[in-house]
Amino acid sequence: MTFATQMLVTHPGTLDVDTDALSRCIDECFSCAQACTACADACVAEESVADLRQCIFLCLNCADLCETTGRIISRTAKFDRGLARAMLQACAATCKFCGAECKHHGEMGMAHCEVCAEACKRCEEACQALLALL
Amino acid sequence: MTFATQMLVTHPGTLDVDTDALSRCIDECFSCAQACTACADACVAEESVADLRQCIFLCLNCADLCETTGRIISRTAKFDRGLARAMLQACAATCKFCGAECKHHGEMGMAHCEVCAEACKRCEEACQALLALL
Amino acid sequence: MTFATQMLVTHPGTLDVDTDALSRCIDECFSCAQACTACADACVAEESVADLRQCIFLCLNCADLCETTGRIISRTAKFDRGLARAMLQACAATCKFCGAECKHHGEMGMAHCEVCAEACKRCEEACQALLALL
Amino acid sequence: MTFATQMLVTHPGTLDVDTDALSRCIDECFSCAQACTACADACVAEESVADLRQCIFLCLNCADLCETTGRIISRTAKFDRGLARAMLQACAATCKFCGAECKHHGEMGMAHCEVCAEACKRCEEACQALLALL
Repeated sequence: MTFATQMLVTHPGTLDVDTDALSRCIDECFSCAQACTACADACVAEESVADLRQCIFLCLNCADLCETTGRIISRTAKFDRGLARAMLQACAATCKFCGAECKHHGEMGMAHCEVCAEACKRCEEACQALLALL
Repeated sequence: MTFATQMLVTHPGTLDVDTDALSRCIDECFSCAQACTACADACVAEESVADLRQCIFLCLNCADLCETTGRIISRTAKFDRGLARAMLQACAATCKFCGAECKHHGEMGMAHCEVCAEACKRCEEACQALLALL
Repeated sequence: MTFATQMLVTHPGTLDVDTDALSRCIDECFSCAQACTACADACVAEESVADLRQCIFLCLNCADLCETTGRIISRTAKFDRGLARAMLQACAATCKFCGAECKHHGEMGMAHCEVCAEACKRCEEACQALLALL
Repeated sequence: MTFATQMLVTHPGTLDVDTDALSRCIDECFSCAQACTACADACVAEESVADLRQCIFLCLNCADLCETTGRIISRTAKFDRGLARAMLQACAATCKFCGAECKHHGEMGMAHCEVCAEACKRCEEACQALLALL
C-alpha cells in the first residue's frame, strides 16, 4: 500500500469514492508533477532546446496542475465533487496534450520525453478512471 | 524503477550524485508532501481538532517544504549544491518535528498520524542520506 | 504598475488579451492565495476551531487553486484559452464558496475571515472579468 | 494596507515580529514568485533561448522557493524562527543569484529580465530585512 492509500483508509471521513481509484489518481498526479518538472529541466538543457519550447510550456503547466489536483483530491474530509471533476478534467486534458507532445519528442530520440509521456498517460488514465466514478 | 529514477537516468546532464539516493529522496519528498496534505485534512476533521493544532501547523509547512525540495532536487541540469543542502536540511528538520508530533498522536490512536509519521521519517532519512553525499 | 503588469508588457509573445484584466487577475490570484493561507492558519489558532472547519477546508483548496491559476495565466507564451477558462471557472467558483464562508465568520467577529472574504471576492471578480474576455 | 498586512493584524496569534517587515517580505515573496514564473516563460519564448538557459533554471527554482517561503512566513500561529531563518536565507541567496543573472540579460536588452531582476532584488532585500529582526 502506498502512503496515499494508507492515508485514505485511516481518514476519519466517510467519503463514498472507490479507494483504489482515488489513491491511484493521487499517486499518478504527484508522479506526473515530478516527471514534468524534471522533463522541463531536461528539455531546457538539451542542445535542441529551441525545438522543445512547446514541450517545456506544457510540462510547466502540467506539473502545477497535477500537483494542485493531487492536493485537492487528497483532502477528502469535505470532498467537493464539482471541484474535483473540474480539476480532473483540466488535469486529464493537460496530461493528454503534454503526453502527446512528449511522445513525439520521445520518438525523435529524447528519452526523458518518452518517460514523461508515460507518466502523463498514466495520470490521464487515472484521472479519467476517477472521473467515471464521480 | 520509479519515474523519478527513469527521469534521472535519461536526463542529458552529467550531475555527479548517486542516482539511487537522489531518486529515493525525490520520491520520499513527494510522498511526504501528499501524506502531510492528507494528514492536515484528517486532523481538521477529527472531533479532537483542538488537540491537533500543532500537528496541523507542522503538516502544512512540511507539505510545502517537501514539495519545493522535491522540485528543486528534480532539476539536475544546473544543480546548485548549496541550495540543495539548505533545502534538504530544512526539509529534514521539519520532517523530524512533524514526524515526532504525528507519532505522538499516532500512539494516542490517530491512525492517519501514524501513517504520516512513517512518511515523515522516511523522508527525513532520505534527505539525510542525500545530504551525506553532497 | 505592478510587476505582473510589467512582465506582461515586456513579454516577447503576442497574446491578444487585455493586459489590465489579465494582470489584475494574476495579482488577485496571488493575493488570494496568500490571504487564504494565512486565514487557514488563523482559523486553526482560534479557540473556536471546531466551528471553523469548513472555512479551513475551503481556504486550503482555494490557496492552492489560486496559486496554480495565477501561475498558469502568467505563462502567456503559449496561452491555452481552454485551460485558462477551466482554471478561471474553478477558481472563481472556489473563491465564491470560500468567500461566502469567510464572510459568514467575519460577521460573527472573525476579523481575519472578513479580510479573507474581501480577497476572495476581488479574486472571484477578477476571474469573471477575465473570463468574459476569453 | 495590502491583504498580507491586514491578515497579520487580524490574526489571533501574538507573534512578536515587526508587522511591516513581515508583511513586506510576504508580499515581495509572492510578487517575485509571479515575476520569476513569467520570466521563465518569456525566456523560453525568446529566439535566443539557448543563451537564456541559466536564467530559466534560476527563475524556476526561485519561483518555487519564493512561493513556499511566502507561505511559511504567512503562517504566524506557531512561527518557527529556525525554519523561517533557513527559508529566508535560502530565498535571499536564490533571489540574489537569479537577480544577477536577470540583470545581466536585462542589460543585453531583455526587458522582462530587467523587470524580474528588480522583483528579485526587492525580495532579497525584504528577506534580509526580516532576517535581521529574527
